Amino acid sequence: MGRVTVRRPVRMLTENTARTRPDALAAEEPLELRVSGSPLAVTMRTPGHDVELAHGFLLSEGVIGAREDVSTARYCAGTDDEGRNTYNVLDVALAPGVAPPDPGVERNFYTTSSCGVCGKAALDAVKLRTRFSPAGASLSVTPEMLATLPDTLRAKQKVFASTGGLHAAALFTADGTISDVREDVGRHNAVDKVLGKALLDGIVPGHDRGLLVSGRASFELVQKTAMAGIPLLAAVSAPSSLAVELADEQGMTLIGFLRGSSMNIYTGGNRVAET
Amino acid sequence: MGRVTVRRPVRMLTENTARTRPDALAAEEPLELRVSGSPLAVTMRTPGHDVELAHGFLLSEGVIGAREDVSTARYCAGTDDEGRNTYNVLDVALAPGVAPPDPGVERNFYTTSSCGVCGKAALDAVKLRTRFSPAGASLSVTPEMLATLPDTLRAKQKVFASTGGLHAAALFTADGTISDVREDVGRHNAVDKVLGKALLDGIVPGHDRGLLVSGRASFELVQKTAMAGIPLLAAVSAPSSLAVELADEQGMTLIGFLRGSSMNIYTGGNRVAET
Repeated sequence: MGRVTVRRPVRMLTENTARTRPDALAAEEPLELRVSGSPLAVTMRTPGHDVELAHGFLLSEGVIGAREDVSTARYCAGTDDEGRNTYNVLDVALAPGVAPPDPGVERNFYTTSSCGVCGKAALDAVKLRTRFSPAGASLSVTPEMLATLPDTLRAKQKVFASTGGLHAAALFTADGTISDVREDVGRHNAVDKVLGKALLDGIVPGHDRGLLVSGRASFELVQKTAMAGIPLLAAVSAPSSLAVELADEQGMTLIGFLRGSSMNIYTGGNRVAET
Repeated sequence: MGRVTVRRPVRMLTENTARTRPDALAAEEPLELRVSGSPLAVTMRTPGHDVELAHGFLLSEGVIGAREDVSTARYCAGTDDEGRNTYNVLDVALAPGVAPPDPGVERNFYTTSSCGVCGKAALDAVKLRTRFSPAGASLSVTPEMLATLPDTLRAKQKVFASTGGLHAAALFTADGTISDVREDVGRHNAVDKVLGKALLDGIVPGHDRGLLVSGRASFELVQKTAMAGIPLLAAVSAPSSLAVELADEQGMTLIGFLRGSSMNIYTGGNRVAET
């Protein structure tokens, strides 16, 4: 473990200099997620917090809704060709009564008819699976608090500082407190780790929290936020069209381009108390 | 078609102002890719250049290696609930003799033994599938030319300029010429579109080209570059550890943090003629 960064010699050029020196890279390795021994998904992720990642992934997919829905999560006990445990295969056993995921569900998620894959079908599929609607959550935030979030996040991004290569995600409360930041080469993984930790900490549905992400807001990130019952997603960069549509339909607040004291509110402005 | 951006009213706050006005968002919609009628993958992409995307995806997956390997690519003729063609389902018919993809291949790509999913297995899997090795390609570039690429790319990113929400990718030649830029909400899609166009234009294997991407360099982007026989990948942001390992093993040149006249050369420095 502890393979969050990897050191490697790098040739660095500037206008007037050229030198070779060791540099830190963000670690990336495959993680295979199994449910009761059956392979479910492989994701390229930064090692660490894999149990949280698995919980967040299963929450996002609608398989689990509480930490009690998982009975055990452990790394595969086998070894690779060189006799070492790779710590890259995690097997999750669901609690009795929890239905395992349909192995075909991932691929066919958005397909509802013979030729009907479309944005609306994707929105409907999320609606069908949401068990903690964020629509009624009464979280209220101020622009002044929101403006502090990116700097707070960046200050806690330990690995980004050394590699420049990681996405970050974190939950925050209405007073601007950020506790646990998660970083990953994949932005979906960073969010899954944060949501998985929230689930393990018993704060899902997160009706009194917001989710902050260091990059853009895609449909899938809004979907994950909704599945955790979190009513507000704030992104440092741009949202996509379908991200905005989904946030709107789910009664969520979506904020983008959160930079310094400027920000764009795409949906759910009722939760932002302008002065 | 032509749904590259979507307009929507947005509430914009700055330190002293608040106003609501229409804003352009990067369009995001699902695309279902079928091969001879069988669903293969669904990706969230920015509509447009879908035929190129399909060709690039199939090239990256090792299914096709030349434009002649595809006999037709057409949108599904059906309609959604409202009687409109969604243009979100693309069916590709392979030429006679071209083996269809194994539907399980995507999920099990990195898994080689009961507990052996690891970086090395991922590298080996690419090695097994590469049909155009980039290792021997004699492309030679200068740091001065490389330094011009990000500005050239940005100048050609029409949609990013209006939305701030798109990744970009483009091929370039040794003299710094960039012809076709592709933009997408998903960076893998932007690369697939560029590689698919190259395949359709008959310039795969792209032994005399480099690939430029606007963001980070992940394992999967290096994999796609290798599968097209392109010996050089230049990224504006950071590479991951596994991206560097794969580039090294494939005999490729990997450049990161390409900003102004500074850049990091991670592998294959022999193709960069320092003055």
